Amino acid sequence: MTSSLRAVSPRIVLHLKPLLVSLPQLSASVFSPRRLFAPINPRALLCTAAARDNGGRSGALTGPPVLEEEESVTKIDVNPPKGTRDFPPEEMRLRNWLFHNFKEVSRLYGFEEVDFPVLESEALFIRKAGEEIRDQLYCFEDRGNRRVALRPELTPSLARLVIQKGKSAPLPLKWFAVGQCWRYERMTRGRRREHYQWNMDIIGVPEVTAEAELISSIVTFFKRIGITASDVGFKISSRKVLQELLRRYSISENAFGKVCVIIDKIEKMPIEEIKKDLSSVGLSEEVINELLQVLSVKSLTQLEDILGSGEAIADLKHLFSLAEKFGYSDWIQFDASVVRGLAYYTGIVFEGFDRAGKLRAICGGGRYDRLLSTFGGDDLPACGFGFGDAVIIELLKEKNLLPELSLQLDNIVCALDQDLQGAAATIATILRGKGQSTDLVLENKPLKWVFKRAARANAQRLILVGTKEWEKGMVGVKILASGEQYEIKVDELD
Amino acid sequence: MTSSLRAVSPRIVLHLKPLLVSLPQLSASVFSPRRLFAPINPRALLCTAAARDNGGRSGALTGPPVLEEEESVTKIDVNPPKGTRDFPPEEMRLRNWLFHNFKEVSRLYGFEEVDFPVLESEALFIRKAGEEIRDQLYCFEDRGNRRVALRPELTPSLARLVIQKGKSAPLPLKWFAVGQCWRYERMTRGRRREHYQWNMDIIGVPEVTAEAELISSIVTFFKRIGITASDVGFKISSRKVLQELLRRYSISENAFGKVCVIIDKIEKMPIEEIKKDLSSVGLSEEVINELLQVLSVKSLTQLEDILGSGEAIADLKHLFSLAEKFGYSDWIQFDASVVRGLAYYTGIVFEGFDRAGKLRAICGGGRYDRLLSTFGGDDLPACGFGFGDAVIIELLKEKNLLPELSLQLDNIVCALDQDLQGAAATIATILRGKGQSTDLVLENKPLKWVFKRAARANAQRLILVGTKEWEKGMVGVKILASGEQYEIKVDELD
Repeated sequence: MTSSLRAVSPRIVLHLKPLLVSLPQLSASVFSPRRLFAPINPRALLCTAAARDNGGRSGALTGPPVLEEEESVTKIDVNPPKGTRDFPPEEMRLRNWLFHNFKEVSRLYGFEEVDFPVLESEALFIRKAGEEIRDQLYCFEDRGNRRVALRPELTPSLARLVIQKGKSAPLPLKWFAVGQCWRYERMTRGRRREHYQWNMDIIGVPEVTAEAELISSIVTFFKRIGITASDVGFKISSRKVLQELLRRYSISENAFGKVCVIIDKIEKMPIEEIKKDLSSVGLSEEVINELLQVLSVKSLTQLEDILGSGEAIADLKHLFSLAEKFGYSDWIQFDASVVRGLAYYTGIVFEGFDRAGKLRAICGGGRYDRLLSTFGGDDLPACGFGFGDAVIIELLKEKNLLPELSLQLDNIVCALDQDLQGAAATIATILRGKGQSTDLVLENKPLKWVFKRAARANAQRLILVGTKEWEKGMVGVKILASGEQYEIKVDELD
Repeated sequence: MTSSLRAVSPRIVLHLKPLLVSLPQLSASVFSPRRLFAPINPRALLCTAAARDNGGRSGALTGPPVLEEEESVTKIDVNPPKGTRDFPPEEMRLRNWLFHNFKEVSRLYGFEEVDFPVLESEALFIRKAGEEIRDQLYCFEDRGNRRVALRPELTPSLARLVIQKGKSAPLPLKWFAVGQCWRYERMTRGRRREHYQWNMDIIGVPEVTAEAELISSIVTFFKRIGITASDVGFKISSRKVLQELLRRYSISENAFGKVCVIIDKIEKMPIEEIKKDLSSVGLSEEVINELLQVLSVKSLTQLEDILGSGEAIADLKHLFSLAEKFGYSDWIQFDASVVRGLAYYTGIVFEGFDRAGKLRAICGGGRYDRLLSTFGGDDLPACGFGFGDAVIIELLKEKNLLPELSLQLDNIVCALDQDLQGAAATIATILRGKGQSTDLVLENKPLKWVFKRAARANAQRLILVGTKEWEKGMVGVKILASGEQYEIKVDELD
């Protein structure tokens, strides 16, 4: 690295030197450079320094020419911003495998893919029920003085598009999306600030057949990737349970969203805190106690004893009966404690959980029949789910189910002589024209090097272009698995 | 929409009413609501109003319960933020088709897919050669006081990852990415503030075989989507032409990057402006005139007469000779005026252009052997290209080559009786298990409605679950193309 430090502005070196000890090597060890240097952020420093440093010219420039006079070398942090990820090839293969399964399941269920901008108007995400999401927005003012935010979830954008499409889109809409979402969260193990989320939504169906269909698609996804009902389950409830309860105590319907958001934190916060929060939105001690007792109910029969028959019970019974017909009864259980953290759910809510109890919720969703009117549109019955790309990977690791995804190549083509580079290019073009993935060796390299590269890429064949063979219109072929080797006429290559 | 205005805070209505005239309908017309109301931004207003409005309680709440007390209805702009796009199903199919072709070509060439965060450290994009890109950054300070930016291009992130990987990644790397990039540009027809860009990069190959391979892959892409050498060409030059010229006049190497950035604007700015800018970086009138004359050269022989033999000529000759072997000589031409707008290119530069002359550059790339050291890494020979998703779509429209991509479904399954919803779910599950895309009708609908939906989705078959048939363990099948209709045992369905 010495040569690269040649032109470093001394002022910057002075500030940053202690932080610049070979970040790449460190990051490979268990000591993350971020944890080591948490209180000081080298990037923030560098960025400010770079922005201000308009005159930091380097002195004597010997050696190869440096092209940009003021391009003073500020050694950047080679890691992606805190909480974000790079996808080098091995990670990208895993992401592609996961997304392929998301998309394939969605296709099987007849859903159409959609997407929205990553950057949305901030107003789209600002709701007032005390959701965590609001304080975690990546938001800013753009150069046109618009308040914008990196989307923390996809549903509000979907709702916006549904309103925009209006009557031109025949209902029901069955839409899915796989998109990146951003939340500025405190970083803990396996918790990042961006993740990709698979969403499936059904717009226009008031019946719980829609929720039943959504859960079925998630079950199909789990089965495809090797996850069984003994690994994962779904806790299912309905917000109507809470609603009916609050109604019984003549609690204003208005407290409902806030109550749900508070209750969602029940496993993350001391129960006394939860009680205090519930009290602060106007619930009496009696109601709070009754509420907490109902939330502990795990059987529909018991719930019916408490609530009597009503929409909540009817919806849940219907859903459990449909689950049987879909064939996923083993996967689901009633659990009154599930309410989900988003304010807009109005009916059935569900979440996928790791039966081993080690991980956060794997996915979650529910019915949100009143979201559109909060944006000024006409309401439509709607339900959907979000399924992140982080927890599922953790689960697959736990269960030893991560697929082995290696680079696969049909051919490596190599010229045995510098003069035959063009001939090798011709061969590569022929093979690619036949739909075969072909890595062309672009430099003169020893055969040993080529074999090593072929092995790393799991290439099927090595095609060698040598002078003698080429003069006869032929090339050498080596099948790498068997070691079989032969010459073949170029126009017989297949 | 009247019902939805019930709970609107009067203060907000007062300010916004003139702006809220049915945005969805308007947007379907040629009068974009954005153009109509350009000086006032309803979203900015709304957002601020929403953020401040903590106490705007609605009065009497009659009718169906409104769940969120403070969820006052602020009618949002249903359009995505200015310069960004939604992807409803029809647009998404086109995007998927395009990306599939990007990825398939990359696979044929043996490239591995990678990706990087959309949000990067701002420092990664701040170079000082007067590039447009710097003033177009979507940048802000995150909640942890880090200066971050939505990436305007992918190459700096790629360089960062290459440095991070260090020696663990065996060279050459052949990487591709398809990612969204952001530039806050002035909006003109077909020019947005975000676009997706296909990049292919080769790291570790100093020879122009690498550039030849990259151009070959773009040609393969064009051919796949029906574009021919009479539609599109590549202008090719080398920055070494300019470098050798400046060296001849003993111009400091340091002016090089700036000169390139200035010259790149030659077709967008009056020549007098260009001359003034060149003069301001220290070039004499004589040099400027010589420079402009060389830039007008369109033949390699003529260039050789001026420059004599040197690296520039040698590289270009080698590239044109390789192009012949690859089989794309028809597509390329030497054009000294091509320099590209990014400061970091050092050798061969190229751009794909519409021969009809109607569109902006379709793609562009080149060699950037010195980028890594500007980030504090050790330099590696490198070249790559960027290929956006906007101009190519315009070109396909011009040439009438846009593919017809419609929704395709294998089955629509429909219960003829409410009680058979579960049975229909069972049938759908069976068909999906066989890998067939199946839309399950989730409500009780008249047959006419179902046929209409089936036609819209181009469904192959309609599967009808009726009481009589179901009692016999059978379902009705209708082949929609032929009208053929029959009953079949459920376990014989395939």
